[in-house]
Amino acid sequence: MDSYGRAFGLWRASATHTENDVWHAYTHHSFVKKLGDGSLPIEAYLHYLAQDYLFLMHFSRAWALAVVKSETLSEMKLASATVDALVNSEMQHHVDICTRFGIDEQALFDAVEAPENLAYTRYVLDAGLSGDLVDLLAALAPCIFGYGEIGAALAKHTADDNPYTEWIQTYASDAYQQVCTEVGELIDSALTRRIGTDFTASPRWERLTERFVTASRLEAGFWSMALK
Amino acid sequence: MDSYGRAFGLWRASATHTENDVWHAYTHHSFVKKLGDGSLPIEAYLHYLAQDYLFLMHFSRAWALAVVKSETLSEMKLASATVDALVNSEMQHHVDICTRFGIDEQALFDAVEAPENLAYTRYVLDAGLSGDLVDLLAALAPCIFGYGEIGAALAKHTADDNPYTEWIQTYASDAYQQVCTEVGELIDSALTRRIGTDFTASPRWERLTERFVTASRLEAGFWSMALK
Amino acid sequence: MDSYGRAFGLWRASATHTENDVWHAYTHHSFVKKLGDGSLPIEAYLHYLAQDYLFLMHFSRAWALAVVKSETLSEMKLASATVDALVNSEMQHHVDICTRFGIDEQALFDAVEAPENLAYTRYVLDAGLSGDLVDLLAALAPCIFGYGEIGAALAKHTADDNPYTEWIQTYASDAYQQVCTEVGELIDSALTRRIGTDFTASPRWERLTERFVTASRLEAGFWSMALK
Amino acid sequence: MDSYGRAFGLWRASATHTENDVWHAYTHHSFVKKLGDGSLPIEAYLHYLAQDYLFLMHFSRAWALAVVKSETLSEMKLASATVDALVNSEMQHHVDICTRFGIDEQALFDAVEAPENLAYTRYVLDAGLSGDLVDLLAALAPCIFGYGEIGAALAKHTADDNPYTEWIQTYASDAYQQVCTEVGELIDSALTRRIGTDFTASPRWERLTERFVTASRLEAGFWSMALK
Repeated sequence: MDSYGRAFGLWRASATHTENDVWHAYTHHSFVKKLGDGSLPIEAYLHYLAQDYLFLMHFSRAWALAVVKSETLSEMKLASATVDALVNSEMQHHVDICTRFGIDEQALFDAVEAPENLAYTRYVLDAGLSGDLVDLLAALAPCIFGYGEIGAALAKHTADDNPYTEWIQTYASDAYQQVCTEVGELIDSALTRRIGTDFTASPRWERLTERFVTASRLEAGFWSMALK
Repeated sequence: MDSYGRAFGLWRASATHTENDVWHAYTHHSFVKKLGDGSLPIEAYLHYLAQDYLFLMHFSRAWALAVVKSETLSEMKLASATVDALVNSEMQHHVDICTRFGIDEQALFDAVEAPENLAYTRYVLDAGLSGDLVDLLAALAPCIFGYGEIGAALAKHTADDNPYTEWIQTYASDAYQQVCTEVGELIDSALTRRIGTDFTASPRWERLTERFVTASRLEAGFWSMALK
Repeated sequence: MDSYGRAFGLWRASATHTENDVWHAYTHHSFVKKLGDGSLPIEAYLHYLAQDYLFLMHFSRAWALAVVKSETLSEMKLASATVDALVNSEMQHHVDICTRFGIDEQALFDAVEAPENLAYTRYVLDAGLSGDLVDLLAALAPCIFGYGEIGAALAKHTADDNPYTEWIQTYASDAYQQVCTEVGELIDSALTRRIGTDFTASPRWERLTERFVTASRLEAGFWSMALK
Repeated sequence: MDSYGRAFGLWRASATHTENDVWHAYTHHSFVKKLGDGSLPIEAYLHYLAQDYLFLMHFSRAWALAVVKSETLSEMKLASATVDALVNSEMQHHVDICTRFGIDEQALFDAVEAPENLAYTRYVLDAGLSGDLVDLLAALAPCIFGYGEIGAALAKHTADDNPYTEWIQTYASDAYQQVCTEVGELIDSALTRRIGTDFTASPRWERLTERFVTASRLEAGFWSMALK
């Protein structure tokens, strides 16, 4: 997935080489497989959607924190556009799907956040509070790029009657893949500005990689929570 | 200016009744008067624009912090849209005006922030870091509403050949007045959620008012800086 | 436990009246019972200590954030003293105990944070980032007061040869109970300053209570993690 | 002043080579000279003390933010001890001096922060919010080290009957010089961890230096404010 940028390629390789292959555990989770072959029980999907709505709220807050922590106009521009897209489009999209399944927005809003959800979103937000922009981006990256990879992979083999086609197409779409490309460029340029062009030579690299791996691990935990 | 909401009406009255009438010092500053009658030296205007570009960068960061500190979807929606409008339109608008006067964007970006600029923007950001959303909004309010008042007032008496007509029309426009109305509604509802409907009965009211007054005082200081 | 203050009494009652009695699930968890009767396997205790060391690091950061968010000198004084006590005494105490069991500090520092640990500490930190001081204190409260209750309760029936007597005495001690009393006073006065004396009449009360309940639920999850 | 560490030596040299020599403007300000020869009007000194009390409150908050942003136990230890010393000793010391001059603590607390005071403290806090620990430390450094230099320099030539001897001795003392040494070590090690040992080769160096220079400029502004 070099099209998502240089840093992602390195982080992904590190996450793959962890004990138990964290990247595979996340992107090839049984929840993902069941989405792909259409065997996922609808209850699990709706449980996922309800938690994902709360997730998006805090994920949007984390992207807003990226605006707070930007140092250049181009960093601000992309982060601002992302916040606006998440809050004023993506969350509404979730509400629409849920409405179709008979879950209204108030019910979404009132759902209790699962601990796995809390762990992930608050970890990302604290990466931003404790570090600088690239600490935050390293923790945001697995969600953005992982969904891009999953969408692209599932779209290749999806049966026409798969009830989750809309979800798969969303992340396989050119529009979403373009988001991944742009975020990849943002991350590479934000890193270059702060740690230079030779990413792995920086004393911060190990810790940034650890953030990516931890967030990937928490993504896998999110899928497991959805299957409970 | 009741059309900007109930909290603004109360805060504005308090700022008016301070020693030296801080609200008048800000909205009727000699910089403002000279803008209105066209007598402002162009050097002062360009100095103002260059500082205001840096101001907008940090003001946008403060609105992004409002997203981070939102508790409801409607709070997030308006704050997100504001950030995106500031970063992806308003700042570009500044660049365009400055280009017309021969100042390129890199020069804008490289300008040294005046202490009066630092004082104002960082005070607002810290209001958000130290308090909750309404602490932040009380500090953001004087800029939003004051410009609305100034634009509306100046537009009534502007000569056709006033070189600053574009600036005046921007803030007198229906579009900007609508922003003021919406931000006023956001502030009133965010306050109701946090301190109840009887604003002045809250133990926090005095401190929130102090934030508004301090930010208004720093706005007046910003105009004085521009005239130096 | 009225000696811990008025807000705690109200929050504790609410946590008790949740489905499944979250307060009981936390303070009477099987991990706690096994600590009390000495039947806890030493491996579980050491696993707990290692995670608790990482917990303390982030819990200290959260108390430091309370200093950042203080509005009065007395708020700052107590929060500052707490940070210093946690970092410069309590964490060292943990290191000492672990050393006795053959775990060195580097091993403590290098332990991987369990998701239940991440969920709790980062939730508390984000309560501070998103809200004001009392949002943060409501999320910090269950740890402080719950340990006080547990220590006091277990100390009444501990056998002389219980290997966990030192842990129990730490939290049953007059010194720790005094900390609980002082934190209770801080919370009550911080609330009075921000929402008035009639706590439950504030529109914020429900949300503050929810923070206390969520943090209590995450405390119970921490014990369960330690037993895995 | 190599005894204050390697980063300080480099930053100080850069601040010295700015237009108008910002470092000299700060450390040899006429306020400082008048303190040194005893000619400072007592009114200016009391005005300074009152603003400095408010300054210390926000400076302590900034050091607390350094705890929030620490990545290692040793970073946390020194930052925590500094917060506690500032809040529970230094601020009390200020209150004591002011009491002797007939200014009570409530009057100190109620003083209106001058814009120059706001500019400095909030700039430092925002350095921490927007960046990581070393961005914050670069902004905190001029105050710590500049007072160390000023104290040491003035102590060499102070007449016995200088009414400001106590102030001078405070910062010339071994205790304070030791604080400078320890903070210098903290900064050097925090930088090494984040940008490597060759400080000036880092792409962040220019920006970190700019933070130091801006904070030094704001320190000079603080003295000028006190003389008004």
